[in-house]
Amino acid sequence: MAAALGARGATRRLLAALRGRRPSLAAMSTDARGLTAEERRQAVLDLKAAGWAELSERDAIYKEFSFKSFNQAFGFMTRVALQAEKMNHHPEWFNMYNKVQITLTSHDCGGLTQRDVKLAKFIDKAATSASV
Amino acid sequence: MAAALGARGATRRLLAALRGRRPSLAAMSTDARGLTAEERRQAVLDLKAAGWAELSERDAIYKEFSFKSFNQAFGFMTRVALQAEKMNHHPEWFNMYNKVQITLTSHDCGGLTQRDVKLAKFIDKAATSASV
Amino acid sequence: MAAALGARGATRRLLAALRGRRPSLAAMSTDARGLTAEERRQAVLDLKAAGWAELSERDAIYKEFSFKSFNQAFGFMTRVALQAEKMNHHPEWFNMYNKVQITLTSHDCGGLTQRDVKLAKFIDKAATSASV
Amino acid sequence: MAAALGARGATRRLLAALRGRRPSLAAMSTDARGLTAEERRQAVLDLKAAGWAELSERDAIYKEFSFKSFNQAFGFMTRVALQAEKMNHHPEWFNMYNKVQITLTSHDCGGLTQRDVKLAKFIDKAATSASV
Repeated sequence: MAAALGARGATRRLLAALRGRRPSLAAMSTDARGLTAEERRQAVLDLKAAGWAELSERDAIYKEFSFKSFNQAFGFMTRVALQAEKMNHHPEWFNMYNKVQITLTSHDCGGLTQRDVKLAKFIDKAATSASV
Repeated sequence: MAAALGARGATRRLLAALRGRRPSLAAMSTDARGLTAEERRQAVLDLKAAGWAELSERDAIYKEFSFKSFNQAFGFMTRVALQAEKMNHHPEWFNMYNKVQITLTSHDCGGLTQRDVKLAKFIDKAATSASV
Repeated sequence: MAAALGARGATRRLLAALRGRRPSLAAMSTDARGLTAEERRQAVLDLKAAGWAELSERDAIYKEFSFKSFNQAFGFMTRVALQAEKMNHHPEWFNMYNKVQITLTSHDCGGLTQRDVKLAKFIDKAATSASV
Repeated sequence: MAAALGARGATRRLLAALRGRRPSLAAMSTDARGLTAEERRQAVLDLKAAGWAELSERDAIYKEFSFKSFNQAFGFMTRVALQAEKMNHHPEWFNMYNKVQITLTSHDCGGLTQRDVKLAKFIDKAATSASV
């Protein structure tokens, strides 16, 4: 009955493998790149106002973008790829024709950080211009 | 407890929407782009030998590619995007850093066609050269 | 004294080689893809209004685009590349950081055709959205 | 008779504009990013062995790449673009179908630096894999 993507099983395996690289929670609490409770509250409020959702099962944010064509969608993806490579911080993303679904989290910190917030803002700006 | 991707729910909705565009099986059997039983058997044999898997829940093929870097992975994706746009036949794909997971099917025919076989062959060639 | 680009000599060789593929003028006058004198006059008027220039030394059009960043410039180039590959009609282009200079002509026809006009219109649209 | 590119005049203007940003030679000689005479001699020897040429009119290196298709050429360009953005060091490049002509120099230093050598090495590696 499950109509889910074939990609799912493989993704679960990838995520499990990445989990092995996750530092302990103790280490995390002093990670300069992590967000304090208050910073996080404000950041998530802003992101939600911009259409991002918090995932319940992972400390990550998610948004779906819809363009007029594959041409627009992949032009947008190229801009995000260039920015991601510059920041050395990469999205998990799925594309089907004119749709792009993006999940952001910091694998090396086991959750949301300032880098995710920054990349999310860039993504929103690039998506707006791609849809014009 | 399910650690699956947040993309899953959205994907299911996308697929459900696409299903509305699926022509009837009767129409499909005379579709020139569809594969005969024998063509399909041979094509799937070749694809499996090349590392593609048949999905059980959809008439589609799936393969996961692993590169040395995001740079290699996205260079590969750009080559596939150019070929897809040329063929007007696009993959469903997921990328996380150096991994690319690709599902191919012909939405407008409700299943595997000659175009999927052709795109799969291009993808395999591009992946080989990207990994050098 | 010549402060021109090092690319110039190589380009001249490329153009000379392409010239060997150019059909005769007689063949051109009946080429369905060529423009009639009147179509050409109107097309060039429209293109000039949009900022394109006719080159004096070749039957080609030229325009320079300026973006805010390399990110925007290369996102734009990717959209043009996808469209070019789809049309099987490719630009001659030069990029330096946020600048993109594009020359359009139909090598196989020895001059401007409907395909150049169509690609120029796509390019203008993509440039507008990339600059937002 | 001059069959040169229309892009030339515009490029000359761009280069003239960039020249305004060039620091004095005195400043350059102590620039940590510049190459010492010996480093430069060895670097240029290695680059020439790999097919790069020194430009006579500018302190820059130049190489032309030829691929089997536009698809391969633009896949290669995307990999170079990602690396350039990561290094914040961008090429001057010209593309016509399957050809890519690349000039490297450090505008902010008025000449060749270690960053050009590093980008040239990446470019050679990416070109090799794209041509497979």
